[in-house]
Amino acid sequence: MEKALTIYKTTRDKLNAFNYAMYVISWDSETEAPVGCMEERSKQIGNLVAMMLEVSHSKEYVEAVKTLYDNKNYLDSDLQVEITKVWEELEKELKIPEKELVEYEKLLAKANSIWCEAKLTNNYALFAPVLGEIIKWQKKYIHYLETDRLKGYDVLLNDYEKGFTQKEYDAFFTALKQDLVPFVKKIMTLKPIDDAFVYKTYDVDKQKQFAKYLMDVMCFDQNYGLTKESEHPFTSGYGTTDVRVTCHYYENILTSSIFSMIHELGHATYERQCDKKYDDTALSGGSTMAMHESQSRFYENIVGRSQSFWNRHYPILQKIFDKELKDITVDEFYHAVNKSENSLIRTEADELTYPLHIMVRYDMEKAIMSSEIDINELPKLWNQLYKEYLGIDVPNDTKGILQDVHWAGGSFGYFPTYALGSAYGAQLFHQMKKELDVDEVFGEEKLTKVNAWLKEKVHKYAGSKTSKEILLMVTGEEFNPQYYIEYLKEKYSKIYNLK
Amino acid sequence: MEKALTIYKTTRDKLNAFNYAMYVISWDSETEAPVGCMEERSKQIGNLVAMMLEVSHSKEYVEAVKTLYDNKNYLDSDLQVEITKVWEELEKELKIPEKELVEYEKLLAKANSIWCEAKLTNNYALFAPVLGEIIKWQKKYIHYLETDRLKGYDVLLNDYEKGFTQKEYDAFFTALKQDLVPFVKKIMTLKPIDDAFVYKTYDVDKQKQFAKYLMDVMCFDQNYGLTKESEHPFTSGYGTTDVRVTCHYYENILTSSIFSMIHELGHATYERQCDKKYDDTALSGGSTMAMHESQSRFYENIVGRSQSFWNRHYPILQKIFDKELKDITVDEFYHAVNKSENSLIRTEADELTYPLHIMVRYDMEKAIMSSEIDINELPKLWNQLYKEYLGIDVPNDTKGILQDVHWAGGSFGYFPTYALGSAYGAQLFHQMKKELDVDEVFGEEKLTKVNAWLKEKVHKYAGSKTSKEILLMVTGEEFNPQYYIEYLKEKYSKIYNLK
Repeated sequence: MEKALTIYKTTRDKLNAFNYAMYVISWDSETEAPVGCMEERSKQIGNLVAMMLEVSHSKEYVEAVKTLYDNKNYLDSDLQVEITKVWEELEKELKIPEKELVEYEKLLAKANSIWCEAKLTNNYALFAPVLGEIIKWQKKYIHYLETDRLKGYDVLLNDYEKGFTQKEYDAFFTALKQDLVPFVKKIMTLKPIDDAFVYKTYDVDKQKQFAKYLMDVMCFDQNYGLTKESEHPFTSGYGTTDVRVTCHYYENILTSSIFSMIHELGHATYERQCDKKYDDTALSGGSTMAMHESQSRFYENIVGRSQSFWNRHYPILQKIFDKELKDITVDEFYHAVNKSENSLIRTEADELTYPLHIMVRYDMEKAIMSSEIDINELPKLWNQLYKEYLGIDVPNDTKGILQDVHWAGGSFGYFPTYALGSAYGAQLFHQMKKELDVDEVFGEEKLTKVNAWLKEKVHKYAGSKTSKEILLMVTGEEFNPQYYIEYLKEKYSKIYNLK
Repeated sequence: MEKALTIYKTTRDKLNAFNYAMYVISWDSETEAPVGCMEERSKQIGNLVAMMLEVSHSKEYVEAVKTLYDNKNYLDSDLQVEITKVWEELEKELKIPEKELVEYEKLLAKANSIWCEAKLTNNYALFAPVLGEIIKWQKKYIHYLETDRLKGYDVLLNDYEKGFTQKEYDAFFTALKQDLVPFVKKIMTLKPIDDAFVYKTYDVDKQKQFAKYLMDVMCFDQNYGLTKESEHPFTSGYGTTDVRVTCHYYENILTSSIFSMIHELGHATYERQCDKKYDDTALSGGSTMAMHESQSRFYENIVGRSQSFWNRHYPILQKIFDKELKDITVDEFYHAVNKSENSLIRTEADELTYPLHIMVRYDMEKAIMSSEIDINELPKLWNQLYKEYLGIDVPNDTKGILQDVHWAGGSFGYFPTYALGSAYGAQLFHQMKKELDVDEVFGEEKLTKVNAWLKEKVHKYAGSKTSKEILLMVTGEEFNPQYYIEYLKEKYSKIYNLK
C-alpha cells in the first residue's frame, strides 16, 4: 500500500510534467506558432504522447493504482476521490487497443482539414465518408466500454458528464421542448429589437481598452494569468497559478469581444478559485465540463447581460466610444445585448435560443448512435430539426450541419453539456438570490461578492465533487431544469414586454 | 551494431521531444508567462529534466552510443560526426556525479536572484559569497574533466569553443592588445561624433514598422518564424522550421531596436539556412557558439553598419520618422551608428571597443581559474583592467563587475567566444570580398546574395563542422586574428578621417 502510493505519486509527477509541456505547446500552437512548424510540432507531440502512454500504461503504475483503488477506504477523502477518478479513466483507456487509438488519432488529424474544406466549399459529400469512419469508430469505442449500466450513446454522454445519460437528458430536453419552444415561437412574432448600432465600426484598440477594464471588474489577477488574441476565444492554463484566456476582436461587432471576454474570464475565475491543494493532482481544474460551462455562462449571461451590470458599466463603454454610442441609452444597449433571434449559427445564438440549437444536435447524435441512419441523410434531418425547434430554413450545409468542428474532432456526447451548463447556472442563480441581493452585487464596481459566493459554493472544490454533488450541496435538491426555463421566461418576458 | 543504432535513434526521438518541450516552455517564460506561475513552472521543469536524465543516462543508451562510437568507421560521415559529438558530451556528463549537479543547479537558481539584488543595490559584497561557491564548483568541474591535453581553464574554454584553449586565445588577445588598444586610445582623443539625434523620442510603433521592413530586407520568412518582444533580445527555435527572435524597443534610443533586430535575425538566418537533413539530429542548429555569434555580428556590423546598407535603407527610415530625421543626412546617420566610445557597459559597446570589454573578462577569468585570487579583490582587478584597456574609470560595481549575468549563471569561458565570433566574421568577410562585390550586395533591396553566400559557405553545414573546419574550408587558412584587426582599423580610420 505504502509502496503503491509512492509509485502513484512519482508517476503522477511525471504525467504532470508531460501535461504541463503539452499545455504550453498547445497554447503556443493556438496563439502564435508559425504555420510552417506544424509538421515538426506534430512529430514532437507524437513522441511526447508515446512517452506519456509508456508511463501511464506501465504495469507498475496500473498495479499501483489498482491496489490503491481496492484499498481506498484507507486513504484520506480527497485521495479516495482522486484514485477513483484515475482508476476509472485508466480502466477505460486500457480497454481500447492502443494501436486502434493511434489509427483513430490519424483519422481525426485528417478529418479536421477535410471538414474545413467541406465547410468552406459547402460540400457535405466531401465530409460524409470521413464522418462515417469517425462514427464507426465511436460505435467501436462504445462497444469496448459498454457495461450493464451504460449502453450505446449513454457511454459517450457519461464520458462528458458523469451521471448523465439519455434518461436524464431526455427529461431535460423534453421540458425545454414543452415550455421553451412555444415561448420562443411567440417571441419571434414580436417586433424585433433594434441592435443595428452594434454593427457599426468600433476601433479594435478601444475594444481592447474596455476588455482590460472588464478584467478589473472581474478581478482577474494578471500576476497569475494573461490575455491574448486567437482565432477562436478559449481558456487554458495549468493549476491555479497560470490561467490564460484569449479573445477575438471584430471591428464590426461591438459585443462579440465583450461577451467572449466575460465568458472566458468566467472559466478563468473558476480555475483561479480552485483550492490550491488540488494543484498537481488529478482533481485539479474544476468539476465536470457542464459545470465549467455553467460558470462561464453564469458570468456571461446571468451577470454580464443583466440590467444592473450595464447600469454600472455602460457609462464607461460609452465614454470610450463617445461618438459611436452617444445616442444609445443604457436601456437600448441592454435590450440590444439581449435580442433574441431564430438564427442559424449556434456560436452566435442568444441566451434564449441557444439551448434549442443544442437540442438539434442532441437529437442528431441520438439518431446517429442508436440506429443505422444513412450518413447522407443527416443534413436532411438537421434541416428538419431547425425548422421544428427554431422555425427557420437552413439555406446550405455550411450554415447547417457543417458549422461545428465537434464531430470532425470525434466529440459525440459533448454538445448536450453546453445546455446543461446554462441550466446548472440558473439553478445556482435561484439559490444565490436567496442569499445575496443580486441586483446590488451584479452592479458593483467589481464582482468581488459574486466571485466569493461562487468560490465558496462551487469553485473551491475543484474536481473533488461531481456537478450532481455540488448542486445538491448548494441548492438542497437534485438537478431541476425548471429553474432554467423559469429564469429564461421571466427574463425575456420582461425584455419583450410580454405578460 | 544494428541494435545499438535502433536504440540510439529511439532514444534520440525521446530526447528531441523533451528538448522541444523545454524550448517552448522557455520561450513562453521569456516572452509572456505570468510571474506568479514561476514556482509551478520550476517544479515541472525539474520533473522534465529528471526524466530526460533518466533517459539519456540509461545504461542501455550509454552502451549503445559507446558501441556506435567504437565502431564509427562503419557509419556514414554525418552520423560519425554526430555520434562523436554525442559520445564526447555524454562522457563528460557521466563524469559529474548527478547529485552534485542537482546541488549546483539549486545554487545557480539562488545565485541569479542574489546577483539581481546586488546589481540593483550596487552591493558586490552581497554577491561575493555565492560567486565564490560557483567558482569553487567550476574548479571541481574542471577537476572531474581534466585530461592530459586539457587542464584548468582550458577545460571550460574548450567546452564553449571546441579546439580553443588559452594558447589560442592568448595569441588572439595579445594581437588585439598590441594593435587595437593603442588605436582605440588614439580614436578617443579625436572629436567625438555627434549622435545626439539618436536619443530623441521615436514612436515605438514606428520603430516596429521599420523592424518589419528589416525582416523583409533580411528575407525572414514568417511562415517559419515569428518576432516578439522581451526584456532582452534573443533568438530561439527548434530546427529549421521554427525560428523565433525577440526585440526590445526603447522610445529614446532609435538605434537599439534596429541593430538588435539585425543581430537576432542574423542568428535566425543561420538557423533557417541549415540543411534540413540535420533537423532532429544532434547536429541541428549551427556550429560552435563563436561561429553563431560571428553570423549575428556579421549581419549587425559588417553588413548592418556599412555605408552601402544605409545608402539603400536610410531613406525608408527617414520617411517613417519624417519629422525627427528631416535634417539628418545619411552620412550623419552612418557616422552616428559607428560612433566609438570608451564606455562602461559591454552590451552597449560599439563595434570597435567591444573586444576590449571581452578582453577584460578573459583576463579576469584566467586570474580566477588559475590562482587563489581573493573573491573580494575581483572588483579592484576589474576596474584596473577597464582603466588599462579602455582608459576609463569605473564609478561603481553596478556599472562594473556586476553588469553581466554570465558568472551568476555559471558561465565561465563563454565571454571569449563573443570576440572570437567577430574575428571569424572579419576573416569570412575578407574572403567574401574576393568573391562578391560587397558594396553592391550589401546595398541591394534584399540581402538575398549575402544570405546565399553564407548559406553555401557556413550555414548549410549546421553542426556537422567545427568553426576551425569551416574557416579552413572557406578561407583556405587557419583562424587568423589579423583580418579582424585590419578590418576594424580600416573601417574606423575612414570614419574618423585618420591617415
